[in-house]
Amino acid sequence: MNGLVTLATDFGESDWFVGVMKGVMLRFNPDIRLVDLSHRIAPHSIASAAYFLTQAYPYFPSGTVHLAVVDPGVGSGRRAAVVETAHHVLVGPDNGMLWPVTQAMGGGRWFSLENPEWLAGSASSTFHGRDVFAPAAARLASGESVESAGPEMADPVRFEWPRPQRKPEGWHGEVLYIDRFGNCLTNLSRALLDSEDPDFFAAPRRVEVQFGDHLIQGISPFYQAADPAMPMVVWGSGGALEIALYEGNAAAALGIHLGTSVRLRSRLVSE
Amino acid sequence: MNGLVTLATDFGESDWFVGVMKGVMLRFNPDIRLVDLSHRIAPHSIASAAYFLTQAYPYFPSGTVHLAVVDPGVGSGRRAAVVETAHHVLVGPDNGMLWPVTQAMGGGRWFSLENPEWLAGSASSTFHGRDVFAPAAARLASGESVESAGPEMADPVRFEWPRPQRKPEGWHGEVLYIDRFGNCLTNLSRALLDSEDPDFFAAPRRVEVQFGDHLIQGISPFYQAADPAMPMVVWGSGGALEIALYEGNAAAALGIHLGTSVRLRSRLVSE
Amino acid sequence: MNGLVTLATDFGESDWFVGVMKGVMLRFNPDIRLVDLSHRIAPHSIASAAYFLTQAYPYFPSGTVHLAVVDPGVGSGRRAAVVETAHHVLVGPDNGMLWPVTQAMGGGRWFSLENPEWLAGSASSTFHGRDVFAPAAARLASGESVESAGPEMADPVRFEWPRPQRKPEGWHGEVLYIDRFGNCLTNLSRALLDSEDPDFFAAPRRVEVQFGDHLIQGISPFYQAADPAMPMVVWGSGGALEIALYEGNAAAALGIHLGTSVRLRSRLVSE
Repeated sequence: MNGLVTLATDFGESDWFVGVMKGVMLRFNPDIRLVDLSHRIAPHSIASAAYFLTQAYPYFPSGTVHLAVVDPGVGSGRRAAVVETAHHVLVGPDNGMLWPVTQAMGGGRWFSLENPEWLAGSASSTFHGRDVFAPAAARLASGESVESAGPEMADPVRFEWPRPQRKPEGWHGEVLYIDRFGNCLTNLSRALLDSEDPDFFAAPRRVEVQFGDHLIQGISPFYQAADPAMPMVVWGSGGALEIALYEGNAAAALGIHLGTSVRLRSRLVSE
Repeated sequence: MNGLVTLATDFGESDWFVGVMKGVMLRFNPDIRLVDLSHRIAPHSIASAAYFLTQAYPYFPSGTVHLAVVDPGVGSGRRAAVVETAHHVLVGPDNGMLWPVTQAMGGGRWFSLENPEWLAGSASSTFHGRDVFAPAAARLASGESVESAGPEMADPVRFEWPRPQRKPEGWHGEVLYIDRFGNCLTNLSRALLDSEDPDFFAAPRRVEVQFGDHLIQGISPFYQAADPAMPMVVWGSGGALEIALYEGNAAAALGIHLGTSVRLRSRLVSE
Repeated sequence: MNGLVTLATDFGESDWFVGVMKGVMLRFNPDIRLVDLSHRIAPHSIASAAYFLTQAYPYFPSGTVHLAVVDPGVGSGRRAAVVETAHHVLVGPDNGMLWPVTQAMGGGRWFSLENPEWLAGSASSTFHGRDVFAPAAARLASGESVESAGPEMADPVRFEWPRPQRKPEGWHGEVLYIDRFGNCLTNLSRALLDSEDPDFFAAPRRVEVQFGDHLIQGISPFYQAADPAMPMVVWGSGGALEIALYEGNAAAALGIHLGTSVRLRSRLVSE
């Protein structure tokens, strides 16, 4: 462990919930170094949290502990999870949000966080961030073993995004995440197309993207390329096809939401 | 002192005010470790700040310095305070916001922050966070004594919440804080009832909570228990009776605001 | 270098962009200490970013690396800059935002960040924060030289605010920045008037401030001085003449925006 603990929650910054978790960890070990990722993940959205973690965690150094709490089922029967991947340790509710990033990191060993010594004396039923997850993250960052957290779990909750479908006329995908600028990120990724459909972008073909009533010609090389008022499609920084407006909110302006269908076609250019 | 300084303000994150305070402290002592609690306390609300600090500070390790600035009276005659409690040191305006958490920590020694050597050369009249409080927090976290800050104060500004009232039919309390989810936290606490009215929850009694036109039967064990569209009452993570909507904003939906009256009754079940 | 890196961006806190930059820096050197200044600078606003940096950077200790990304031109031809000032090193897009603070710090040496070893293998065209700026900040904070970043730049992009004009009846200035409370900061600074117009405030003169249809008599000593419902003018904490409402949003209530003209007159008092 390198002593770093990242924090990602949907708690917002107005209230004391994040500060309390920081206090709990620093009281256990004042040398822990805390790294805020975000406390504004879409409230109660396991899908948004899963997407967020998949984008952020891989950039951190080996030995980082990642604490994530988006927990609509707090107090119900859902388990608490500790996951050991090749280079990192993840702590959070077993509600699916940790599944995609664990898979992206090559899979991991899952443990059910239930060692009574690790839980705060009187675990409340409403604030497991304080009573369950923060104490565990502090112990793990301080060198305690993942095996000490509790028994191994064979059946963690899985969460999977729909895969794009190859159709005769091209690929059918959908919007998985909308960022705060209103950019709409899809499950159509450059890596997928390059591996499964290497001729898709071969010249002399022209690429079109369709969603709702909109048809966009070509993929822009970067955000500024297009007319500011015209929607455009770019390959985003994570490799996903992204619908954007240069100086506007594409989701709001174009009526796009999570799950909106997006079609990518490649047509022969008739010369 | 352990080298940790927490920050809690109503300055928001859009402007440079928080960054400037961090710079001032790190320029005095680059080894200070800063912990952001929140910069989104309700603007100018001494009551919200007092509640926030009471919830957050007790979780931090012994030797932590807590810097808090919600300061509607900046530039007027209000004093600046340094408080030494059993385990912590608090720094902020003497406007009442530090009073409840000091009492909750068992009381403290209050000092008027007026040592001219501790104040920035030309203390502005509008930004005491930079010119008065941050320099003091940096000195205290670096080991200077609370006595050096200035003379002891016998009469710090007090701020007290109304106490719940025992009436023949039950307890009358009120809403003290509304969090960003819209959950409404009252001054009716489990600890108070257990100590002053131990038979209140004795079976075969049924508990009811009334506020405005709403009457809620029973206290839910956790947030997810109730119908998502129905208001519910839970014991919150800090031990306070809390009015919530599972997937909504209780304050907005039910017309609750700070000071809304809440009545807790316990009735014999007629079988 | 002191190991500190400040971060200022317009990325917001909802998404993973800030977290990714932190991960990139900590993976390069886990001992770097990160200081969040703000991630809520007005989106794509080079003017707001320039003003923000000018206010915040001077308070930091010698040897601090400042990473700033407000980058409407990402992916286009704009260069990436490293600036060495007397005490600090700045990293960000060469779009003007680093110019005013560099001038305020006594000028600096500008380098074009283009050393291929410093850039992430496959620099994306949309996220230079991750691929260009964060890796450079990490290297500079770890002791690599500014000269290693790339060749010196003779012609960085300049950004200058309009200077106030001396007219027969007083000074004409304008609003440069509106903070989150709605306070309106102008380019009329106390330091400017004291140096260029030392008699301006000499008694028996009366100072008036005019903007739009509003005429305000006198400059208040601090925010609380005036009637809460009346606009007032104060010398802000950075030395700029500032239009404020004690408990309201002056910009919204008075129709002030960036560039609004503000006139400062000093009249003989007829006794």
